[in-house]
Amino acid sequence: MDSKYLLPIKENLDRFIGNDFPINEIKKSVSDAKIEKYSPNEYFICAGETNRKIGFVIKGLFRVFHTDMEGNEYTKNFRSTGHFMSSMAALLLTAPSRLNIQALEYSEVVCINYDRILQLADQSFLWQYLLRKSAEADFLEKEQRESDLLYYSAQDRYLNFLEKHPDWEERIRQRFIASYLGMTPETLSRIRGKPAPRN
Amino acid sequence: MDSKYLLPIKENLDRFIGNDFPINEIKKSVSDAKIEKYSPNEYFICAGETNRKIGFVIKGLFRVFHTDMEGNEYTKNFRSTGHFMSSMAALLLTAPSRLNIQALEYSEVVCINYDRILQLADQSFLWQYLLRKSAEADFLEKEQRESDLLYYSAQDRYLNFLEKHPDWEERIRQRFIASYLGMTPETLSRIRGKPAPRN
Repeated sequence: MDSKYLLPIKENLDRFIGNDFPINEIKKSVSDAKIEKYSPNEYFICAGETNRKIGFVIKGLFRVFHTDMEGNEYTKNFRSTGHFMSSMAALLLTAPSRLNIQALEYSEVVCINYDRILQLADQSFLWQYLLRKSAEADFLEKEQRESDLLYYSAQDRYLNFLEKHPDWEERIRQRFIASYLGMTPETLSRIRGKPAPRN
Repeated sequence: MDSKYLLPIKENLDRFIGNDFPINEIKKSVSDAKIEKYSPNEYFICAGETNRKIGFVIKGLFRVFHTDMEGNEYTKNFRSTGHFMSSMAALLLTAPSRLNIQALEYSEVVCINYDRILQLADQSFLWQYLLRKSAEADFLEKEQRESDLLYYSAQDRYLNFLEKHPDWEERIRQRFIASYLGMTPETLSRIRGKPAPRN
């Protein structure tokens, strides 16, 4: 794999473990990785599908969502350049994915084999540590979102979102943002119509 | 610590790692642990509090819940004999707890110092592996619950709950069960009034 893809992966992993993640270890994990290109609306993962892949977004933006029995969609999160994405529960349970991951714009992804990572972790304290940190981060992301829905008003959630991801509002459809923030598109429109000062 | 407490902890950890967890390692982790007793309604952890403890329930039952700004309570889960409990997000972030853990009945807990576990994990592949498996299980529990709320009807969620925890219905107040299952107490009453056959 072209070494230009290694550096952004290393940057992400360094942040995860709060230390230098050796580039040689990263090379081992991506020895059979592939670069995949996605047009807008193409799926990286479809609900019902069983696969063993983790994506690292080199360029672009994806939406992670559930669809319930009535066909209603629930946006769980978004994944952009420099971040990993997968159907983690499906990987951990070796089960079909319950969620969908769909490109919102033209995107490029390093597609890594999760079983390759598991093999590395079998023998390595460092990879074991990375998988721990990664699972803790996944847990925290969900926990934080759950309690944000309880502790922050719809308006504050929207303002936090803007602050964290200033460019996403232009790149993501209103109804996906509303779904992600746990409000109706009408509530989001109302809030956007009258942005209140933060203080 | 009395060795009678070690065996149930070992049973839990064996299950987590899917293998034999050496009793000597467990002894290291509980060298400064304390046995604590809780009367009904007493708190193991209060929201706003900062602490570094993990509880292992030797006997009894606890409710884990959030309280929102209006004072409404949201039951996240329950922890019973043979299981660990903590405010994991607070431990990971070294921050005040956002959740409460309250005894529902007379309970006994082995109170373990999380920082002791982190020290052990610094030097041990096995403890690193356990922390990874534990974080993955925490993540899966949340993920599963989130998607159960989307994919199962209120009635199916209640029947799954009964099947998984046949004794909890007698031990837990209706309104806590309703909150945990994501329905109003009225919906739960209605469902309980006419239990439908599963097939």
